[in-house]
Amino acid sequence: MKIGILGGGQLARMIALAGYPLGLDFIILDPSEDAGAIGLGEHLHGQYDDQNLLAELAEKADIVTYEFENVPVKVAEFLAEHTTVFPAPNALAVAQDRLHEKGFLQQLNIPTATYASIESLTELENAMEHIEYPAILKSRRMGYDGKGQVVIKSKNQLAEAWESMQNAESIVEGFVPFQREISIIAARRPSGEVVFYPISENTHEKGILRVSECRVGDVIQSQAEDYVVRLLDALDYVGVIALELFDVDGKLIANEFAPRVHNSGHWSIEGSETSQFENHLRAILDLPLGATKARGFSGMVNFIGGLPASDNILDTENVHLHLYAKELRKGRKVAHVTVREDDRDTYFQTLEYLIDLAKLTDNS
Amino acid sequence: MKIGILGGGQLARMIALAGYPLGLDFIILDPSEDAGAIGLGEHLHGQYDDQNLLAELAEKADIVTYEFENVPVKVAEFLAEHTTVFPAPNALAVAQDRLHEKGFLQQLNIPTATYASIESLTELENAMEHIEYPAILKSRRMGYDGKGQVVIKSKNQLAEAWESMQNAESIVEGFVPFQREISIIAARRPSGEVVFYPISENTHEKGILRVSECRVGDVIQSQAEDYVVRLLDALDYVGVIALELFDVDGKLIANEFAPRVHNSGHWSIEGSETSQFENHLRAILDLPLGATKARGFSGMVNFIGGLPASDNILDTENVHLHLYAKELRKGRKVAHVTVREDDRDTYFQTLEYLIDLAKLTDNS
Repeated sequence: MKIGILGGGQLARMIALAGYPLGLDFIILDPSEDAGAIGLGEHLHGQYDDQNLLAELAEKADIVTYEFENVPVKVAEFLAEHTTVFPAPNALAVAQDRLHEKGFLQQLNIPTATYASIESLTELENAMEHIEYPAILKSRRMGYDGKGQVVIKSKNQLAEAWESMQNAESIVEGFVPFQREISIIAARRPSGEVVFYPISENTHEKGILRVSECRVGDVIQSQAEDYVVRLLDALDYVGVIALELFDVDGKLIANEFAPRVHNSGHWSIEGSETSQFENHLRAILDLPLGATKARGFSGMVNFIGGLPASDNILDTENVHLHLYAKELRKGRKVAHVTVREDDRDTYFQTLEYLIDLAKLTDNS
Repeated sequence: MKIGILGGGQLARMIALAGYPLGLDFIILDPSEDAGAIGLGEHLHGQYDDQNLLAELAEKADIVTYEFENVPVKVAEFLAEHTTVFPAPNALAVAQDRLHEKGFLQQLNIPTATYASIESLTELENAMEHIEYPAILKSRRMGYDGKGQVVIKSKNQLAEAWESMQNAESIVEGFVPFQREISIIAARRPSGEVVFYPISENTHEKGILRVSECRVGDVIQSQAEDYVVRLLDALDYVGVIALELFDVDGKLIANEFAPRVHNSGHWSIEGSETSQFENHLRAILDLPLGATKARGFSGMVNFIGGLPASDNILDTENVHLHLYAKELRKGRKVAHVTVREDDRDTYFQTLEYLIDLAKLTDNS
């Protein structure tokens, strides 16, 4: 069985590593020469809209999936005409447009921030009559890791904020006064069978995820499961999904979802019985989903733009290293490290140590 | 960092899968077109004594290791002149000759079965004056999975037994009346730092390993550690080693050792904090060794010559599948399955279920 992946970065790399034990082969379409997953399968080297390469991918792959949500919907639709594509293109269509995404969530009675569609300065000015400051202006499409976003603190920043969007179709969102950011990762089979991971509690800096911790038995778990299953069923979704949420006094407000494996679930490789990567593959292959229960305490720290020597990471007990085989470059996620511990205090100590280590070599 | 592996079967496959997260690349020398590890690194396609390929391997690999102990010693020595080879060729030289191996173990005061060198029927007849029946006649070299062995139950089988060896240099060993077969897997760094896994309790049939179970806190653990560390230190060994032992009324008798990762340690992928494959790589890279403590109860079942559909394996909770991407062929190990459980009773139930599943499709 051959799985095609659009995108050959670290997510595709970890999908492939989880897939070999299931007897899978991979074919990866990626425009770069040396993305992290190259070497773990056949590499189709070119752009995502290259018709010849897409035809070849559709021909060779039994199932196609993707590691990022900005795959052009037309590409996914073209592939779906010729082979099986999971998650189906409709999930992409919703996820890659923040305005549609918010509307979709609200239709499912999943709360979101107050928001408005913005296509001009006048629309922005009008919208901000009804939304409190601070607010965030975001391009509707192609944003990730905090790119294409600007915070608006007061009325006199409106013009400048709009100008920075360069006329991109945008959305303005009221700021959510959250206590914490969480995400829930779930996997769904074609039959509708769903498994949920324990929620992740996430820390971002400069718009980039720094730390994700598995929170077993959190009071918010069932609320998060309720929301993500509405989303999964409405999309008739197949594969792993990640729904990011704000926790405001015990009430969850949806931020966005990613129709793919997610950085906030990387702890599941060691911290859960079955990793998110394996469960993504099991789901799209329509195999029984694996147990998602947590193994003790676990958390993940991203290394951005820089890295200490492996010795300095691995000399702490129960720490697991995941290098992405990328050149070190400013702002780039180059590795993550997981700590998995049975003892709660040791867990927190080790996590703090890893966070300090990541700060020392940070180049974000 | 590029690791060369002699042999591209399932052991090389699992080494490579453990190595990508450590940022490693692989180059694999194997005579077959479609061994399980091909696809996980550059493939040098040819015989193990092909001088040009060996030169290329030595040139490209920073460190060379192997997945089987029958690598010609001269090949390992040639490579060691041009690059780093771990484990060093001396371990191969001892391990691949049963007579040297037994002598080496005895020098270290590690008990073995009674044995004698056999190069003629007369020598066999003389030896059996001092060794009790039943005994086992084995070729000194190139035996694995019970091949090149014959059981001798009485004096009148001696001539036939010797004839079956076709004049191969042989060894006759007295039968050890064991209660159980165990193995201990350990990893050693160049500095001499050693970690031990909990012992494995092993079940063989027709000379092939069927089941290995992790036995945490076994009374025999310290005796096994004592023996394997003598062996490691005497060989100044670097990498993972497996020492197979018989348990006779609580006293261990060494059978043989394998200078490599070992089938009886496959449970460590899920059942231990750090797998034997990762610790082999950490050892040869001189990185800190990973924790080897067990995660609950775990055991492994080999699938030989045949396989049920993946659905039938994965629909049992906490079961993990490892396909080797091999054509199904009589007597060939084609997959293993691990169960990892927190609950002891459920563990034994699931293990029995998996053993039954393996029997249903067995073609050994």
